[in-house]
Amino acid sequence: MSVRVGVIGAGMIGQDHIRRLTDVVTGATVTAVTDLDAARAGEVAARIGATALSTGAALIASPDVDAVLVTSWGPTHAEHVLGAIAAGKPVFCEKPLATTAEDCLRIVEAERAHGRRLVQVGFMRRFDPGYRQMKEVIDAGSIGTPLIVHCAHRNPTVPDAYVSAMAAQDTAVHEIDVLRWLLDDEIVSAQVITPRATSKRFEHLKDPQIMYFETANGVRIDLEVFVNCQYGYDIQCETVGEEGLVRLPDPAAVGIRTTGRHGTAVLQDWKGRFADAFDTEFREWIASVASGGEPTGPSSWDGYAATVITDAAVRSLESDGTTVTVDMKPRPAFYGGTA
Amino acid sequence: MSVRVGVIGAGMIGQDHIRRLTDVVTGATVTAVTDLDAARAGEVAARIGATALSTGAALIASPDVDAVLVTSWGPTHAEHVLGAIAAGKPVFCEKPLATTAEDCLRIVEAERAHGRRLVQVGFMRRFDPGYRQMKEVIDAGSIGTPLIVHCAHRNPTVPDAYVSAMAAQDTAVHEIDVLRWLLDDEIVSAQVITPRATSKRFEHLKDPQIMYFETANGVRIDLEVFVNCQYGYDIQCETVGEEGLVRLPDPAAVGIRTTGRHGTAVLQDWKGRFADAFDTEFREWIASVASGGEPTGPSSWDGYAATVITDAAVRSLESDGTTVTVDMKPRPAFYGGTA
Amino acid sequence: MSVRVGVIGAGMIGQDHIRRLTDVVTGATVTAVTDLDAARAGEVAARIGATALSTGAALIASPDVDAVLVTSWGPTHAEHVLGAIAAGKPVFCEKPLATTAEDCLRIVEAERAHGRRLVQVGFMRRFDPGYRQMKEVIDAGSIGTPLIVHCAHRNPTVPDAYVSAMAAQDTAVHEIDVLRWLLDDEIVSAQVITPRATSKRFEHLKDPQIMYFETANGVRIDLEVFVNCQYGYDIQCETVGEEGLVRLPDPAAVGIRTTGRHGTAVLQDWKGRFADAFDTEFREWIASVASGGEPTGPSSWDGYAATVITDAAVRSLESDGTTVTVDMKPRPAFYGGTA
Amino acid sequence: MSVRVGVIGAGMIGQDHIRRLTDVVTGATVTAVTDLDAARAGEVAARIGATALSTGAALIASPDVDAVLVTSWGPTHAEHVLGAIAAGKPVFCEKPLATTAEDCLRIVEAERAHGRRLVQVGFMRRFDPGYRQMKEVIDAGSIGTPLIVHCAHRNPTVPDAYVSAMAAQDTAVHEIDVLRWLLDDEIVSAQVITPRATSKRFEHLKDPQIMYFETANGVRIDLEVFVNCQYGYDIQCETVGEEGLVRLPDPAAVGIRTTGRHGTAVLQDWKGRFADAFDTEFREWIASVASGGEPTGPSSWDGYAATVITDAAVRSLESDGTTVTVDMKPRPAFYGGTA
Repeated sequence: MSVRVGVIGAGMIGQDHIRRLTDVVTGATVTAVTDLDAARAGEVAARIGATALSTGAALIASPDVDAVLVTSWGPTHAEHVLGAIAAGKPVFCEKPLATTAEDCLRIVEAERAHGRRLVQVGFMRRFDPGYRQMKEVIDAGSIGTPLIVHCAHRNPTVPDAYVSAMAAQDTAVHEIDVLRWLLDDEIVSAQVITPRATSKRFEHLKDPQIMYFETANGVRIDLEVFVNCQYGYDIQCETVGEEGLVRLPDPAAVGIRTTGRHGTAVLQDWKGRFADAFDTEFREWIASVASGGEPTGPSSWDGYAATVITDAAVRSLESDGTTVTVDMKPRPAFYGGTA
Repeated sequence: MSVRVGVIGAGMIGQDHIRRLTDVVTGATVTAVTDLDAARAGEVAARIGATALSTGAALIASPDVDAVLVTSWGPTHAEHVLGAIAAGKPVFCEKPLATTAEDCLRIVEAERAHGRRLVQVGFMRRFDPGYRQMKEVIDAGSIGTPLIVHCAHRNPTVPDAYVSAMAAQDTAVHEIDVLRWLLDDEIVSAQVITPRATSKRFEHLKDPQIMYFETANGVRIDLEVFVNCQYGYDIQCETVGEEGLVRLPDPAAVGIRTTGRHGTAVLQDWKGRFADAFDTEFREWIASVASGGEPTGPSSWDGYAATVITDAAVRSLESDGTTVTVDMKPRPAFYGGTA
Repeated sequence: MSVRVGVIGAGMIGQDHIRRLTDVVTGATVTAVTDLDAARAGEVAARIGATALSTGAALIASPDVDAVLVTSWGPTHAEHVLGAIAAGKPVFCEKPLATTAEDCLRIVEAERAHGRRLVQVGFMRRFDPGYRQMKEVIDAGSIGTPLIVHCAHRNPTVPDAYVSAMAAQDTAVHEIDVLRWLLDDEIVSAQVITPRATSKRFEHLKDPQIMYFETANGVRIDLEVFVNCQYGYDIQCETVGEEGLVRLPDPAAVGIRTTGRHGTAVLQDWKGRFADAFDTEFREWIASVASGGEPTGPSSWDGYAATVITDAAVRSLESDGTTVTVDMKPRPAFYGGTA
Repeated sequence: MSVRVGVIGAGMIGQDHIRRLTDVVTGATVTAVTDLDAARAGEVAARIGATALSTGAALIASPDVDAVLVTSWGPTHAEHVLGAIAAGKPVFCEKPLATTAEDCLRIVEAERAHGRRLVQVGFMRRFDPGYRQMKEVIDAGSIGTPLIVHCAHRNPTVPDAYVSAMAAQDTAVHEIDVLRWLLDDEIVSAQVITPRATSKRFEHLKDPQIMYFETANGVRIDLEVFVNCQYGYDIQCETVGEEGLVRLPDPAAVGIRTTGRHGTAVLQDWKGRFADAFDTEFREWIASVASGGEPTGPSSWDGYAATVITDAAVRSLESDGTTVTVDMKPRPAFYGGTA
């Protein structure tokens, strides 16, 4: 039996996930769609033979919806996730889980009150083959105890609407989540410093930024966020352990030798870089829903943790690079694990 | 509407394709299965809710079957493909299309008599992202006119049943197909020489072998086939043109530095190497069937060409490395293209 | 005419430079040797047909000595360099120029009083082909204005005598010098933080350390110093500019594929890594002396700058990672350049 | 005591070796120069304080000459080498040792009659760090018994005077020598085939060519010679053994990421590629002469072997790619080794 998915939010990312559930991943059918823009919801629904509904609440309540996908505007996430929990339905929420730590905690509390995990947050890097290989290498002890992680997250350009705090909230948040998982460790402090800014940007934007994180185990992470690097979309991650190191590969690409240069293309687009990760993320989520089990991806606690850590990073940015302690509640046993 | 696929042959490769059509690729349902071993057909069919049928002919004739997938023993391919053509149903046939050039030609003639393409042959490399990038680079003129191709096809080991002629028939046949497509050119002669044989093999086997091919345009291809290379499954391809060269990438893998060595893992298994290619191959085939169009993958002519070229290679092997001219009929306009 | 070089200090590094001047670099003859251990001076001198002298002062004064090479114990460097300046003879001093900033300044002042440059300090990385290529790329504007530099300096192990402050004084000092030259920019602050320490070390040692530097132009540098990384000697440097980045290559080494792994050897030893740099350093120094010109390598000002910057780093280490402003005098015009 | 070298032939390569002996390698002094162009000999000699002599015979006979370097026009090599042997002086002869196999044999016989090795031939690849690493890996048994070698030798362009036979005589001859040494095995047959020719060349030239060699042990070698490949000077070599493979590295070069591409520069010039090899070649030759021992580099037998193997390749080229057996005399015990 196909999992019947209702989608709240039919914008770009919502439509891409609908395409994925319809054309790429087996075992799912999008049966209902809603959007603030009712006309858009209608068009998208019609295209795939789904029903357009007028509100998220109606969609969550629909008997034709087994599981909910939240891809609406960030500030509305909490309401819909809480609604799905109240209805006892599995819910996949695109990041952020909620725009405030308080709302994230409300979701965590609601889920704990419900008694089993229903929520998965859309951090797709945990599903990337490279990060998964890296985690296998670390977990196998091949490089010894991790001590340091070096990362870079570079985009060719960002639009004018991108403001300095988004370097943490929208960009670094992916590293924050994947590193907590990779290291099985919690981030306890954040610091953000601003090198000489690129002149190839909007005046208002501090770009690049360098973020330093410390974990409970004393691992130090440095992360270069450079969202107008011009040359391409480039994700780097290197974990240094007591006995060796492991580094994320660059995407496989044909090597070309012409006119005095040996090289490979560098991707321009994050979609190409993490296309496999997105597919696997949804394949595994649909499988967990279909089996009636709990989701295996990032939990609402992970969504909460990412939010409080990015909050700390933003406070550091706004206070000239002061190191800011992450103000995180104790991790409930309900969520298992360490980080 | 889902494409209803009937599968003839439920062995290892058949089951893997059934899994792919069921769990990985959307838009298809396996509705019928047959196998010489009726018990196996029954088990496999039961597992996926399909019907087990007693013969290929019955399966082809079934009103619940829109398209046929032939994954039975090679010598039976021709019969089933001809049956599907007679029934006017699209048919995907694992390589080889047929075990003799004569049978391949009978299929070609039957398909031409039918008037439109129904047959796709299972050469998956045309769907591999690396070869596709390479073809884009060549077709864009970035390296100029191709002059030479260097290839290697290495397996860690092969079982005792693998005999010397299979180096051409089972192994090199993948390069033969993909290079015809990559170069848009036809292979006109073949030569197979035998270097010093590895001692890490069965006595009866000539391994490695080096194959030389020449194309109609004068491109020279060298292909090392080494099926007991011990260290891993490794596919190399480099096309040298008038102005540059393009090389297939190694699969992306994390880099590891430990104890004096910097390295990456080398795959041990062809399934991992071409998993994406197989998925894309079936995704595109199902899409062509669903749309009612002709298949876009390797045609029955390509299946015929691969067979006559491997025949030439085997004759060269059996005649101490004499260069053997490929005895190929003129390409019918029906199949378009050059090669 | 061969340049006649007198060597003060015939220990390991002194003997290696004597070998270099005798067997590798043309145009020089080592004519005199002195060492605190007179017997050792005698042996070394006899081996190459030089005269053993009893003191540095005698060696500097010798009419058979055109230029002085100081490879004695660090605390004695200042005395010998000042002696050479007083004698008006070119002097190559291994790092450090002097063990205190005050002594470095005394040398700077003496050299300025002399009126022309006589001193070169032994920072060999400026002569490494990789760093030189990197500087060419930066100076050509190929990556735009530099904004960030990521570095790592890793040794397999260090002996018990290596204490925490030496991470800055003996190890990071190489990056400090080469980055000032690479960026043509001055370092204005230093911060040293200590990740979780490796357990594969002596208890007393803080290892690894991460050092952050800021330059006058706002470039941010992060440098991982890890002197017990176990796996090898590994030097990494990546400069990120407004329009691209440039990265130091790993040393060229044959690629090997065996037993499931594709890899290259990682060096175990800094001597192999910078052998070419040492040779070029001395070749260029001898050439400058032979021509009667001023030395083209790192100046006494560079030696002073490296000392005050490492002082700042050590103070940061000793004050729990506080950012420490570098207390550097204004750069005299005498030394040209920016940094 | 410095080795006093007399140089016969003061053209481009002669002058470059004079520079090497004068400025790069210690332990040698060029004391005499001769050239067909007496004015050129005079100028070159004057520049380095050597004596210009009117003939090679006079130079060989000079009491100021300990060792002879032959860098004159190829057809004159045999005469000068024979002269040096007759005088009992060590002689370094640029390739070819002689232009005919007969003349090479006369040299071999003269040297054997003399009773100890005096001749070294200028095949510099044996001194390249990459080939030396490769030989260490092979000799250590790390890849098992060698079975196949894949090579490419590419130049950006060649001048009009370069004719088709020179692909073997001037270009492939370097691989022929280094592979005999690398494998410690003899080449017994040669075949040269001509792919579609590049249009970016002179009409008269067959370019690229592919050469196949077989060794006494059954190793098969394929060598692409492409002297107008446009993109750069590029040397590739991969040896495949029973248990693994080893590949020559590309020259170390900084990695650059700009405008959608990750790459490194490819060299344009063979001088840069083998600069270290040339230096080491002369350093070791001078050391062998200075010590009074026999030369350790390629012998006159190696020079003979290279000539008869290139002769076979040229005959194959001129007979449409027929496989030609190498007509080599039995190896005299005098020269030790296998190949």
